[in-house]
Amino acid sequence: MKSKVVVFDAYGTLFDVNSLDRLLNDYFGEASTELSALWRKKQLEYTWLRTLMKRYRPFSEVTLDALSFACNMLRLELTNDIKNHLKTAYLRLQAFPEVKSVLTVLHQQTSLAVLSNADRSMLQGALETNQLTEMFNQVLSADDIQKFKPRPEVYEMVCKAFSCLPQEVLFVSSNTWDVAGAKSFGLRVAWLNRAHTIGEELQLREDYRLTDLSQLQSL
Amino acid sequence: MKSKVVVFDAYGTLFDVNSLDRLLNDYFGEASTELSALWRKKQLEYTWLRTLMKRYRPFSEVTLDALSFACNMLRLELTNDIKNHLKTAYLRLQAFPEVKSVLTVLHQQTSLAVLSNADRSMLQGALETNQLTEMFNQVLSADDIQKFKPRPEVYEMVCKAFSCLPQEVLFVSSNTWDVAGAKSFGLRVAWLNRAHTIGEELQLREDYRLTDLSQLQSL
Repeated sequence: MKSKVVVFDAYGTLFDVNSLDRLLNDYFGEASTELSALWRKKQLEYTWLRTLMKRYRPFSEVTLDALSFACNMLRLELTNDIKNHLKTAYLRLQAFPEVKSVLTVLHQQTSLAVLSNADRSMLQGALETNQLTEMFNQVLSADDIQKFKPRPEVYEMVCKAFSCLPQEVLFVSSNTWDVAGAKSFGLRVAWLNRAHTIGEELQLREDYRLTDLSQLQSL
Repeated sequence: MKSKVVVFDAYGTLFDVNSLDRLLNDYFGEASTELSALWRKKQLEYTWLRTLMKRYRPFSEVTLDALSFACNMLRLELTNDIKNHLKTAYLRLQAFPEVKSVLTVLHQQTSLAVLSNADRSMLQGALETNQLTEMFNQVLSADDIQKFKPRPEVYEMVCKAFSCLPQEVLFVSSNTWDVAGAKSFGLRVAWLNRAHTIGEELQLREDYRLTDLSQLQSL
């Protein structure tokens, strides 16, 4: 079945969260590698826990909560200056190198969308920074329904926005748990395995596996 | 307000999951420390992700899925023999040293219960191994409602079982996310901080903090 719309996860898929690493290194030196990993781990955990507890809080705030936790855990001082600088840097994340050229071709062929846990201001920041705003027919944020992925309602937003069936959507994500969530809801899913890692043991398998977005053009 | 019932989380709170470490070390040597941490991390993640995706699977199976993932990730061979041995060992987890003596006194003073993500066979195994079965008025398993903590419905099981209000329950857990979940639902919560770690940044605070169950007697 031909896709009616190709939908992209944002962080890790379009935008390189590791592009913050230089900044983290400037502030925290050797501890920055561990900090970066713990920050990301807690950011995810807090989206899941908050959705389970029905205690929604926007992704931008969850991201800062996770940063606070990670700094506390590693006994690193998080000043307001650093916090504000990292918050701003998140709005200016760099896209992966191939993103712009691939989307420029694809968006002439089919509808494109972003589906992300992030609130709209975060997404708009990163899209504008990378001059990608024009590429997308829709930017869908979990903030609109106040639940995070992998709740099925988040993936369902695509079907509602494009009046289409789950199997008419091709969802692209580099996050293994997001691949499982999208598959669980019924979307067709391409796992963008940028990190050359292994999939989850959740009895849900992607339909396609890519290592680079440019491979999308052959699907 | 006096507690009508004191409720305990199981793993990490009553039973020492690290008591499996010697066995993991026999099988996997130096890699066992990393394996143990990754196994536990994935076990939790899978309970959360499955509840979010509405794809329930019993804790005993999630535990083995997480073990498979962790062994794959670390390129360790997981034979059926090892898998079965670890599965059996989980049924025979050791209780922390002070558990039996504390519960022996407490259960003469108030109602006691276990509230765990684990399915009943796992809980019964660990309770019998440590001769704790008689201490508890109720053993409540998330398996009965096919959702894992920290969904509020899991904590609500206590109120239903004991016909009481949330604030009449004292819930004891060593897991920081479980402390947040119970508090979010409205239980009174004692965080058993065995690991001397920091709490979560989830804007939910425990009512009491313990480092050892024997401190419960003074509450």
